[in-house]
Amino acid sequence: MQSFSFYSPTKVIFGKGTELGTADEIKKFGGSRVLIVYGGGSVVKSGLLARIEQSLTGAGLAFTSLGGVKPNPRLFLAREGVQKGIEFGVNFVLAVGGGSVIDTAKGIAHGIANPGTDIWKFWLKEVEVTKSLPVGVVLTISAAGSETSDSAVLTDDETWTKRGLSTEFNRPKFVVMNPELTYTLPKYQIACGVVDIMMHTLDRYFTPDEGNAITDEIAEALLRVVIKNGRVAVENPTDYDAASELMWCGSLSHNGLTGLGAKKDFATHQLSHELSGRFDAAHGASLAALWGSWARYTYQEKPERFARFAKSVWGIATNDCKLAAQEAIDKTVAYFSSLGMPTSFSELGIGVQSEEVLQDLTDRCVFHGARTIGQFKVLNRSDVYEIYKLANH
Amino acid sequence: MQSFSFYSPTKVIFGKGTELGTADEIKKFGGSRVLIVYGGGSVVKSGLLARIEQSLTGAGLAFTSLGGVKPNPRLFLAREGVQKGIEFGVNFVLAVGGGSVIDTAKGIAHGIANPGTDIWKFWLKEVEVTKSLPVGVVLTISAAGSETSDSAVLTDDETWTKRGLSTEFNRPKFVVMNPELTYTLPKYQIACGVVDIMMHTLDRYFTPDEGNAITDEIAEALLRVVIKNGRVAVENPTDYDAASELMWCGSLSHNGLTGLGAKKDFATHQLSHELSGRFDAAHGASLAALWGSWARYTYQEKPERFARFAKSVWGIATNDCKLAAQEAIDKTVAYFSSLGMPTSFSELGIGVQSEEVLQDLTDRCVFHGARTIGQFKVLNRSDVYEIYKLANH
Repeated sequence: MQSFSFYSPTKVIFGKGTELGTADEIKKFGGSRVLIVYGGGSVVKSGLLARIEQSLTGAGLAFTSLGGVKPNPRLFLAREGVQKGIEFGVNFVLAVGGGSVIDTAKGIAHGIANPGTDIWKFWLKEVEVTKSLPVGVVLTISAAGSETSDSAVLTDDETWTKRGLSTEFNRPKFVVMNPELTYTLPKYQIACGVVDIMMHTLDRYFTPDEGNAITDEIAEALLRVVIKNGRVAVENPTDYDAASELMWCGSLSHNGLTGLGAKKDFATHQLSHELSGRFDAAHGASLAALWGSWARYTYQEKPERFARFAKSVWGIATNDCKLAAQEAIDKTVAYFSSLGMPTSFSELGIGVQSEEVLQDLTDRCVFHGARTIGQFKVLNRSDVYEIYKLANH
Repeated sequence: MQSFSFYSPTKVIFGKGTELGTADEIKKFGGSRVLIVYGGGSVVKSGLLARIEQSLTGAGLAFTSLGGVKPNPRLFLAREGVQKGIEFGVNFVLAVGGGSVIDTAKGIAHGIANPGTDIWKFWLKEVEVTKSLPVGVVLTISAAGSETSDSAVLTDDETWTKRGLSTEFNRPKFVVMNPELTYTLPKYQIACGVVDIMMHTLDRYFTPDEGNAITDEIAEALLRVVIKNGRVAVENPTDYDAASELMWCGSLSHNGLTGLGAKKDFATHQLSHELSGRFDAAHGASLAALWGSWARYTYQEKPERFARFAKSVWGIATNDCKLAAQEAIDKTVAYFSSLGMPTSFSELGIGVQSEEVLQDLTDRCVFHGARTIGQFKVLNRSDVYEIYKLANH
């Protein structure tokens, strides 16, 4: 087991009706003037936003709101939130939504706490985050895991550059998780979430490092549970047990637990950021469209690792490592398909891309040669190109 | 899945040499005047205490020390620590040791922060803990899980009463885990730790509640990993991988994760507290001496649950639930034996007890009829008596 640091201080309040306790939690963490960040109309239409606002008013908390967060959350809106928060004298940011809303809230919190610094500098790693405001979350989608993670992704809408930032200041103070809040999601969005949750574990599980028994076993357990309950939830979004498992697994998958003691890969995430950044494709769908190609390109690096995945997650008993690996990749890709997820560029709805676009995606992914990606197999420019090409049908 | 709250904010710094960073962590959490709490001579002889003290001095931290903590940590020593801490103007308590040292440190921290209140009142639930000092840990034994748990157990040495206290104020701020620090432990103590770790999960796993897929799967994974690596570590205490798995599993087993969404049982813990309180027996050994009797007395309440345990943890394929349950209990008890752990009163070294002592243990365990214990099967006075009787050979 390699040395590691694990710090997941987010308080989780899980169960039916828990959103009614939001104001109490904000107060416990020192909030009195709150910026509520949310996305589209669904939290308005469902009455959730009104319930939260009532709860805040009842508790004597002052608040203002910022709506309109979209998937692949935009830098300009986060900047607008910073401005609004500073003007209102905000000391707490509350995200009501999923990953995009939470990531936007994190960006806003950093910005309000550092009024002289443009927040994009944090994402470009030009300035380090050394302070921020507390962030709380009312979670409405099981997917990104941002509610307990140390990361946040924003997209610069002028250059269509998507960048992730990891810092302990990205950890929310609390998250309220009521699985019933996910009942009204479209099935496509539930399926995107299932893929996202799986990928947060898969991108940690496929590592060159061995000898992490409890980490590996927890990762495999999580994958089995998500695969089983993902099927149920996409079929029947109001199955409370399935919705519960997905919601809790979504957090566990990205709080660090499933990758401790080993190098993390995250190549598929980095490959997919270029697709979702450029074509505004859904994050989970972009991951599904690429993972099979990544796996088929890299599994020979260490087929025993894929064979372990085959046995533990898919129950494949084949003794031949390569055959087991191939079968497990096929099963995973077929599972994505069964949820209605794409497994290629054309299924993702972006069409087959020209050679020029492939080259451009590749250049941007490897920062024009300034970096490699991945750890299971370290991928250079030509590897990245080959993987995009494999998925380009 | 039942509603739950999960809050495990302790920062974990894991790996070789990590104890050298202790002073930095204390400073991050606001400490400047430190009370170091430790146990017997081993941390002195090994030079660990000197290394820690050097690190504190080097970082400009003032400190004083309190040694002499014993297993089944005594109230009187914690009270002494409170006094010492107040006199020195301590604002941080550092535990260097295992569960007994950490629990003592927690008690001292509560006492210093509440100078007008005798700390035993917190354990008697007469006064609620509403503030405390920050506690940090340098862990030297994989066992109690107190380094990330919300609980602490103290023994009133005048009445030989052992009581547990659960409060969020019991969560340490950080724990430094270097598996190498466990290399010099006697095998008996390693084995006690293995049982303790297993029991923190078993006492959560055996619940009347169903429908907690990821919680159950994580619990089963942890049990498999601890059983396997416990064997290795008792055989070879300097196997780094085995020591690592035990150390990390020890924390995960008691930070709450393996029991979320379900009622917890903890009957075996409560039965054992009377034994270790009265006879000063080792905690892990007392648990081992009782679990088999608890399991044989209760499994018929829900043999399917034991059959699941049989299949997932011991690979027992028998279709007959009762047979599978019995076989799993036998295997678990045999495993304890194989580690050199007792499975009865006489093996525990306290001898076969008289009827009078059994009745007294029973009365004390159920608070003279004021409480039942357990949840998998709710145990009243006569149940508790029968379990003690089963183990009394």
